[in-house]
Amino acid sequence: MTQDPAATLAALAAALPAGILSTGAAIGEAHWHDWSDQDPVPPLALLRPRSTAEVSTALVALGRLGLAVVPQGGMTGLAGGAHPSAGAVALSLERMNGIVAIDEIGLTMTVEAGTPLAAVQAAADAVGLQYPVDLGARGSCTIGGNLSTNAGGVRVIRYGMTRENVLGLEFVLADGTVVDTLNTMIKNNAGYDLKQMLIGAEGTLGIITRAVLRLQPKPTTVATALCALPDFDAVTALLKQLRRRLGPALTVFEGMWPSFHDFMADALPLARKPFARPHGAYVLVEASGFGEETIQDRLEVALADLIEAGVLEDVVIAASERDARDLWTVRESVSEYGRILGRILGYDLGVPIHAMGALVVALETEIPARFPDARTLCYGHVGDGNLHVVVNVPSAGLHQPHDEVDAIVYALTGRFGGTISAEHGIGTLKKPYLHLARSPEALDVMRRIKRALDPAAMLNPGKLLPDP
Amino acid sequence: MTQDPAATLAALAAALPAGILSTGAAIGEAHWHDWSDQDPVPPLALLRPRSTAEVSTALVALGRLGLAVVPQGGMTGLAGGAHPSAGAVALSLERMNGIVAIDEIGLTMTVEAGTPLAAVQAAADAVGLQYPVDLGARGSCTIGGNLSTNAGGVRVIRYGMTRENVLGLEFVLADGTVVDTLNTMIKNNAGYDLKQMLIGAEGTLGIITRAVLRLQPKPTTVATALCALPDFDAVTALLKQLRRRLGPALTVFEGMWPSFHDFMADALPLARKPFARPHGAYVLVEASGFGEETIQDRLEVALADLIEAGVLEDVVIAASERDARDLWTVRESVSEYGRILGRILGYDLGVPIHAMGALVVALETEIPARFPDARTLCYGHVGDGNLHVVVNVPSAGLHQPHDEVDAIVYALTGRFGGTISAEHGIGTLKKPYLHLARSPEALDVMRRIKRALDPAAMLNPGKLLPDP
Repeated sequence: MTQDPAATLAALAAALPAGILSTGAAIGEAHWHDWSDQDPVPPLALLRPRSTAEVSTALVALGRLGLAVVPQGGMTGLAGGAHPSAGAVALSLERMNGIVAIDEIGLTMTVEAGTPLAAVQAAADAVGLQYPVDLGARGSCTIGGNLSTNAGGVRVIRYGMTRENVLGLEFVLADGTVVDTLNTMIKNNAGYDLKQMLIGAEGTLGIITRAVLRLQPKPTTVATALCALPDFDAVTALLKQLRRRLGPALTVFEGMWPSFHDFMADALPLARKPFARPHGAYVLVEASGFGEETIQDRLEVALADLIEAGVLEDVVIAASERDARDLWTVRESVSEYGRILGRILGYDLGVPIHAMGALVVALETEIPARFPDARTLCYGHVGDGNLHVVVNVPSAGLHQPHDEVDAIVYALTGRFGGTISAEHGIGTLKKPYLHLARSPEALDVMRRIKRALDPAAMLNPGKLLPDP
Repeated sequence: MTQDPAATLAALAAALPAGILSTGAAIGEAHWHDWSDQDPVPPLALLRPRSTAEVSTALVALGRLGLAVVPQGGMTGLAGGAHPSAGAVALSLERMNGIVAIDEIGLTMTVEAGTPLAAVQAAADAVGLQYPVDLGARGSCTIGGNLSTNAGGVRVIRYGMTRENVLGLEFVLADGTVVDTLNTMIKNNAGYDLKQMLIGAEGTLGIITRAVLRLQPKPTTVATALCALPDFDAVTALLKQLRRRLGPALTVFEGMWPSFHDFMADALPLARKPFARPHGAYVLVEASGFGEETIQDRLEVALADLIEAGVLEDVVIAASERDARDLWTVRESVSEYGRILGRILGYDLGVPIHAMGALVVALETEIPARFPDARTLCYGHVGDGNLHVVVNVPSAGLHQPHDEVDAIVYALTGRFGGTISAEHGIGTLKKPYLHLARSPEALDVMRRIKRALDPAAMLNPGKLLPDP
């Protein structure tokens, strides 16, 4: 951008179709920040294209003016991928919102990128199917954002990440080229699977405009139980047994350490506590049944055997859907953190399952060793090796010691063979640590691909990829 | 290659560790051809490295000498991806064969690329788990080849392609750079998922040397049935019902049209025919049960209901493992084609499931319209929208009309929204038709990625990617 901002914006307006450009006070504050707890930044301008063709036109115009662009979905990201960059234009997919087609025999749904996850789930449900990716932000997050971050959630153990639930994409490259890879088939080995590079690239390689999602048969019955165990060794024993006995019927396996479960169970206004006394570990289990299958019985028999065997100390089995929702209360209390803890530091670590217990012990030792009043709350998707850690140092108030806690957490994660982002992505917040998770050779290949698809580094600059 | 071949080979020998280079008559004929029915081509030389470091050294040496390299696995490919190119060196991964590690709680297996699929399956089975990718060539094909072609097989409906069953890769770029992305976690969103570009690239972007595979719980019981139906509409009704009633317990759904089933059932030396009279369509179904589940009962009840409802005309349910093997006989008779039909033309089409019936009708009309004595045998992985077509024109003998039948088949495939390769890849045989399945923009992106990773076009030149 060599001109002054006003002249640049005038030139941009002249190059764009009417009605898609907003500037100044007309840019809603929702576009100034995502959920990554960074200071709001007003974008230079906001583009809200209504079609893939308008996305293409916009990128060509931005390229001619040398303007960078930050793609925006539902703004629920926790790593900063959609957070505005100073001097860059934000491009929101919010007007490209809708279900394009459903194929009930091929089990596919074609959608526009700005469609909220909850709308996709509801549309699948309406035809007796399911879109199985599910996460807390379902009402606000969009499919485009889910794809760009390869979102995970609570049923990855059975259905995989977003990557495993998409068959085709349409996307627009930095130079405005529209690439149609809207494949609707489960099998299509005709050349490189280009969509894979866009998935999880956080908008740095292209802008996703449409997707063909994979749908799944919908379970007819769902059984839910909250298990209390003596320690993490029992958690891995439980996982092994339930996988063996339930196979793919095991659809949720969410672990909670006492640091998280007991603290939140005390802090939340629960009608009654799930267990009479504290335990060494907790696991929320869900099993899904189809057709004639009596999944509730199978789960109950399995858990009874595991109490007998001493793997479980106690268990609460939901007798109704309302019971099941109650059992999820502590696990889904994320939105209460602010009220209960104040400002927090959040981590999304991936680690081999066999090392999760030892990593938690190390985190819960080393963080308080440095910050004596620190709270370290641990929970996660144990079946996927995904550990969430929430840290709060009460004495630090609004100025939580980001850098020091980051350093402790990521050093330990590396020591246990883990990764710095399991499902949230890199964005800006984790970029300084990406070298801990990826080799110099891998980072170099990432840069080669970035240069091949976006040679002017116009798409979401400063995100994900560290400078060489 | 500017020198004469003897001088080039001498220079190559000097640059390589002892014991990995073979030339002339020392190159086994197994390295002259794959299963793609093309004329054998002796490679200029054969390299059989014993380690990733030796693969890297070899690629650096080949690059300095301007030599192209064709990576080779088990040589079972049907599209020509591993078939030698004149003047190129073959690099076989056969000595890099072995299981490196198994994680029974994380459900991963780390293997060298040259390990045969059957050895991986056996190693998983030995610890009470399964590696679910399965295909006829299991005894000969290798994991490296499975990955490079994104192999499919008979259980894709439940477990996905090879891509869905791998967590990490180690690979070597054309310039000798070793890239370690041997991730062992289900979730790892730390930057671009580079392994995805190597999977299905047929050795054109790098040479895969190791992989971390995903294992699955092993079913405790498997039920198998062969169904007879009036027509393809009933096949889609059966698929819909079984998905709804069995969910993920449905692990095989293999369709056979009468052109395939009745012809092969007559031609094979079967002890008894499965059905007393011919039917309009056949489906081989497998359901897998875990733990307490009585999957045999569930499948039997479902199929009895579907006979009642008129979806099925007849059904044979296996009462033993031996029965089950017998029910697979016709479906797995691929190796008998040569003996029964002589020289054949084979196709591996992907098409939306709802269009499969109409595509078969069109193929079985238009091919005989052009070649009156032609036989057109149709079967496939209906649950995945993958149709295999075998054509033989008896009057053409050894000179089957490749080009004309290709043109008919691929034109019809395009008309019904299909793809020219569902699971076999592109190689050399399908390269002339890739433009029918991929847009010019997609082909351009493929070329940009190829140039970024292999600027001298040294890896498997002439394969997969058409010249611009």
